[in-house]
Amino acid sequence: MKYFSETDIKNLDHIYKINLINSCSGYKSANLIGSVSEDGVQNVAVFSSITHIGSSPAIFGFFLRPTTVIRNTYDNLKTTGVYTINHIYEGIKEDAHHTSAKYDSDISEFDMTNLKAEFKDDFKAPFVKGAPVQLAMEFLEEYPIKANNTILVIGKVIGLYVDNELIEDDGFINLSKAGVAAINGLDGYAVPQNNERFGYQRPKEITESL
Amino acid sequence: MKYFSETDIKNLDHIYKINLINSCSGYKSANLIGSVSEDGVQNVAVFSSITHIGSSPAIFGFFLRPTTVIRNTYDNLKTTGVYTINHIYEGIKEDAHHTSAKYDSDISEFDMTNLKAEFKDDFKAPFVKGAPVQLAMEFLEEYPIKANNTILVIGKVIGLYVDNELIEDDGFINLSKAGVAAINGLDGYAVPQNNERFGYQRPKEITESL
Repeated sequence: MKYFSETDIKNLDHIYKINLINSCSGYKSANLIGSVSEDGVQNVAVFSSITHIGSSPAIFGFFLRPTTVIRNTYDNLKTTGVYTINHIYEGIKEDAHHTSAKYDSDISEFDMTNLKAEFKDDFKAPFVKGAPVQLAMEFLEEYPIKANNTILVIGKVIGLYVDNELIEDDGFINLSKAGVAAINGLDGYAVPQNNERFGYQRPKEITESL
Repeated sequence: MKYFSETDIKNLDHIYKINLINSCSGYKSANLIGSVSEDGVQNVAVFSSITHIGSSPAIFGFFLRPTTVIRNTYDNLKTTGVYTINHIYEGIKEDAHHTSAKYDSDISEFDMTNLKAEFKDDFKAPFVKGAPVQLAMEFLEEYPIKANNTILVIGKVIGLYVDNELIEDDGFINLSKAGVAAINGLDGYAVPQNNERFGYQRPKEITESL
């Protein structure tokens, strides 16, 4: 195996380092966050850090750097209090990735890609049309992370739309049936073809020990 | 599409709700965290919330509930200051998932599964033998999350081991070459077969607008 010490990592070429460190935590969720500015500019941006925090209430978090392109998303969700989360799937992955380009805040990524905005039930922020899972989110709280000056943004699920055929009898959403993508590193997209479920695990008897 | 309002979600049957909400954020990272108690009991537990927070310094976070099985991991990393992160791959996914069973703190999951502990370079916490990516982590800080009483634990990468054949020339670790798994919901494991990279994106000229 190749070994990198903390000092090795620190001294790596910048591009090599961000590729390496972004791909060494495992697969990441592949989502588009939709938001809208006070002036009505619709923003959509790819995020790979959306993480389940709890189910009751249903709460998700994500991390952002306030000084990058992601600023539009942050400004919008702080101003309007709402945003959407939409799953990236096989058919839109290239356009979805293009939303990582740094556009000015007066330009909508919906105008620069084939992604289409969709509005539902008077929710203020745009969803991404065709996404097999779409979430209406309400901003709850934020935590500045001292270690590297990022921000953890936490929101509550206030609406969930799921393609009917993905939901199994016990509530499990089978993402592989919809060609949902996972992100590897900064720019790799993988689309798993199937899923295997192992169920709820109970401790084995000690005598069963292997 | 099937629609669930906030009230619908709140009123769902418990099992249906945790399956639904755990699978609606997209694919999650599939990792085993290795740790060791003061008494020398080696612990290994599956986590799906490990998230990249930054590359310089290399910082990852994960969420846990201090009152569940995960307590062993938390107690150990707070006591020793260190833990490991190991990628779950095709060959160990069933054993990896079994570590979610609630064993008492004096029982090592390494004794109850085919997972093997591996020690390297005098690092105190056990790695998982055979994992294609292994990280030596140092605890940095924690944030109590008010919204649902979970804890965000943040750690720094102080050592990284990667199978040589996975690393591309620009530092990208191709997880699909190692059969690394992604988690769908509470108990679904998907192993992507390939990866497509789209590169760094620059804004299109406005005249190129679609």
